[in-house]
Amino acid sequence: MRTLLLALAYDGACFHGWQVQRNAVSVQQTFQDAVERVLGERPDCKGCSRTDSGVHARCFCVSLRTQRQIPCERLQAALNHFLPESVSVLGVREAPEGFHARYDCLGKEYEYVIWNERARNPFLASRALHYYYSLDLGLLNEAAAQFLGTHDFSSFCTLDGRDRGDLSRAVTRSSWRREGGCVIYTVAADGFLYNMVRILVGTQLYAAQGKLLPAELPDILLARDRSRAGPTAPPQGLYLNRVFYRGLSCSAEGFQEESDE
Amino acid sequence: MRTLLLALAYDGACFHGWQVQRNAVSVQQTFQDAVERVLGERPDCKGCSRTDSGVHARCFCVSLRTQRQIPCERLQAALNHFLPESVSVLGVREAPEGFHARYDCLGKEYEYVIWNERARNPFLASRALHYYYSLDLGLLNEAAAQFLGTHDFSSFCTLDGRDRGDLSRAVTRSSWRREGGCVIYTVAADGFLYNMVRILVGTQLYAAQGKLLPAELPDILLARDRSRAGPTAPPQGLYLNRVFYRGLSCSAEGFQEESDE
Repeated sequence: MRTLLLALAYDGACFHGWQVQRNAVSVQQTFQDAVERVLGERPDCKGCSRTDSGVHARCFCVSLRTQRQIPCERLQAALNHFLPESVSVLGVREAPEGFHARYDCLGKEYEYVIWNERARNPFLASRALHYYYSLDLGLLNEAAAQFLGTHDFSSFCTLDGRDRGDLSRAVTRSSWRREGGCVIYTVAADGFLYNMVRILVGTQLYAAQGKLLPAELPDILLARDRSRAGPTAPPQGLYLNRVFYRGLSCSAEGFQEESDE
Repeated sequence: MRTLLLALAYDGACFHGWQVQRNAVSVQQTFQDAVERVLGERPDCKGCSRTDSGVHARCFCVSLRTQRQIPCERLQAALNHFLPESVSVLGVREAPEGFHARYDCLGKEYEYVIWNERARNPFLASRALHYYYSLDLGLLNEAAAQFLGTHDFSSFCTLDGRDRGDLSRAVTRSSWRREGGCVIYTVAADGFLYNMVRILVGTQLYAAQGKLLPAELPDILLARDRSRAGPTAPPQGLYLNRVFYRGLSCSAEGFQEESDE
């Protein structure tokens, strides 16, 4: 039995999230259909996270087990042949027996893209949040810095039974930058709670609007109370950007070997 | 009677080109419907060019005449309210009586975007040509330079009766650059024949494939024979990028005043 790890990219506007659902087109369903056409079997595909409807992936990792001996490069080409244009296989590689795209994941990086000009951008309609008021990058970065380190993020997640036990996460990157007409938030952590990035963004936009001060954020973290944080920003601005495994990372450029620590 | 000049941007994947047609959604139709809802009248809207189905506009200029006294900024906001997300009004300004977006146009700039990586990019599915073989920028720029200056571009246009009389055009910019995984061609001229940019691109890709030499291009220009040039590149990579008028230019950032000459 081989275990394979695959890196995908997909346009979230075309799907109702990763996970298979009744009466809705999911990336997982679409991907498993293509796998079945290529391999003639339907292995269970494990995704590295459960992206919501409308959320994009520049890189999303999937593990599966198969008996078939098709070489990785040929599998990639064949899958891309059968997949719609809204999904692309960026890379395929052998993984250790039993490797699991989600349980073996050491961390992830997300980006949240805001189109920050007065007139909307038709090319970013389903690819960014349109926010027309001016944004103070200094203030946003002051807010972003409060999330760095290990905190209980209960105030920044939607509790629906998915996240149990320890709700603390270690945030290793949290910063804003301007790129042309866009303002982009990057956040990396060893894991993310449900809706965490979108609530972090919504809360920081609250700070940008003067509805709370960056200095209040440590108290909001300590409160462990969702009602203390800001709203959940809409999904179309969110991109899964990087996925980290031991000795390996994955981005829009595909897999890169990384020296172990 | 006021004459107004409007700058639009649109995602060409959502439309069958600019011009009104039977049984197909055009930008012009969609735009005129929005104008009618805002102004309560249906002025004839003159577009700066006739973009084909699938071709995008980062900036496209439209002139119209109206009796209504609505201020430019309010007209912009109202039109954006009624237009779909795939079209945006970037700016509205008063123009001299009788100004015509097409006849008064002094020049235009187009970009052609090629996604030049092995795996396709789901975010550029209808926004770029996917070309996976490696491209030699030096050779492409050698080819591009042959088009600079004033030439008869009969070999580089589809003759369908649209272009009559003098088929010579003055090309002021013609060059390639790499930007991330994209390879981009920029061409500016005082005017363009039907399909001209797409044939210029198709021919230069022929040169990149070794099917002709950049040094043969002057002969192909002199031949005035469409069959001597390469194929017409597909529409989805093409963007109308800038439009030039006397003292005024228009881009994705809206209108900019320019010093005359």
